[in-house]
Amino acid sequence: MGVNITTPGPSCHSSHCLNSSSSLSFFTTPTMEKANVMEAKDGTLAVASAFTGYQEAVQDRDHKFLSKAVEEAYKGVECGDGGPFGAVVVHNDEIVVSCHNMVLRDTDPTAHAEVTAIREACKKMNQIELSDCEIYTSCEPCPMCFGAIHLSRIKRLVYGAKAEAAIAIGFDDFIADALRGTGFYQKSHLEIKKADGNEAVIAEQVFEKTKAKFTMY
Amino acid sequence: MGVNITTPGPSCHSSHCLNSSSSLSFFTTPTMEKANVMEAKDGTLAVASAFTGYQEAVQDRDHKFLSKAVEEAYKGVECGDGGPFGAVVVHNDEIVVSCHNMVLRDTDPTAHAEVTAIREACKKMNQIELSDCEIYTSCEPCPMCFGAIHLSRIKRLVYGAKAEAAIAIGFDDFIADALRGTGFYQKSHLEIKKADGNEAVIAEQVFEKTKAKFTMY
Repeated sequence: MGVNITTPGPSCHSSHCLNSSSSLSFFTTPTMEKANVMEAKDGTLAVASAFTGYQEAVQDRDHKFLSKAVEEAYKGVECGDGGPFGAVVVHNDEIVVSCHNMVLRDTDPTAHAEVTAIREACKKMNQIELSDCEIYTSCEPCPMCFGAIHLSRIKRLVYGAKAEAAIAIGFDDFIADALRGTGFYQKSHLEIKKADGNEAVIAEQVFEKTKAKFTMY
Repeated sequence: MGVNITTPGPSCHSSHCLNSSSSLSFFTTPTMEKANVMEAKDGTLAVASAFTGYQEAVQDRDHKFLSKAVEEAYKGVECGDGGPFGAVVVHNDEIVVSCHNMVLRDTDPTAHAEVTAIREACKKMNQIELSDCEIYTSCEPCPMCFGAIHLSRIKRLVYGAKAEAAIAIGFDDFIADALRGTGFYQKSHLEIKKADGNEAVIAEQVFEKTKAKFTMY
């Protein structure tokens, strides 16, 4: 029995799924070993294609940064800074900034996590465009934030919760308009990825778990 | 010969069109005199309906604030702060803030005139929503700015130039997406007015007149 490696389940996102057993000496290059080989529960092995290995590595990487964005969402509510939304800007596999919604703290309705992160990243990198960067957001960006992402020329967006998870606890249904509207298909320079499986669940749980801790604005 | 008072021309926007002659003693209340009576060039008089008088007053008022936004657009380029865009937030007929695009000065792609004005107005009024305010913008707001206007709950938007005037000198055609998309019709709490006639021309001229003075970003 092999392992389903084309669509790895939620528990396979982190590195503990990767096998480094000495019995795999025929795949000794670290890259190959890390990317392509997984051990099934019954001890049998399956070797994935190089493409699937790449997908796995991307999944691990995305999981790491998306988890950070989700963490920020919780942190923002704990601090009383604003709503449960987080955003992380990544450049060359390194986090440039990790921010959360600051609407209440800054008395600023534009201080969503994404806008704040873009603003801070631009200041830190001293440039008005982020074409070499990616943004990870705990929730689907609202039209304002999607506009900011577009204007900053960020090349890749990975988001966790669908807008409906925020709308379900009382946020404006306007959130859902950005990626569903006609404008979406015109933004061909931006890769957009929605988390699925457990990652999406974790990101969506942010809303139910925080709704009693902040005042809706 | 009467005066065309139902569709006043551009030259009638300012208060010099209003007549306060003593021969109009049968309309002595200041409100009536100011709002309803105009003198034609040949000395004949025409009395407008109260509704048209109201429209005139709104036109004068809108002209004043829109002119300020256009002035800001020129000012921003002269200062080297950013692109030729201005925005004014008005509360109870008073200007709360008058801002222009600050993208270059702040190294911040989100610092459009509208976002800057909303941010500044909220700080000045110490509140995260501007439901009693109007915003006057020299140009049709981009999706990010329209999102910010929506989120701030501003009740009325008056804009001068259509997006195409900015696109014509090289700005991203994304600007035109906000008010043309499907989302527009869902925003029933916001009144949106586009300037016409000479006011639109003046606002659109901003782009041609400034394009040599700043670097496109």
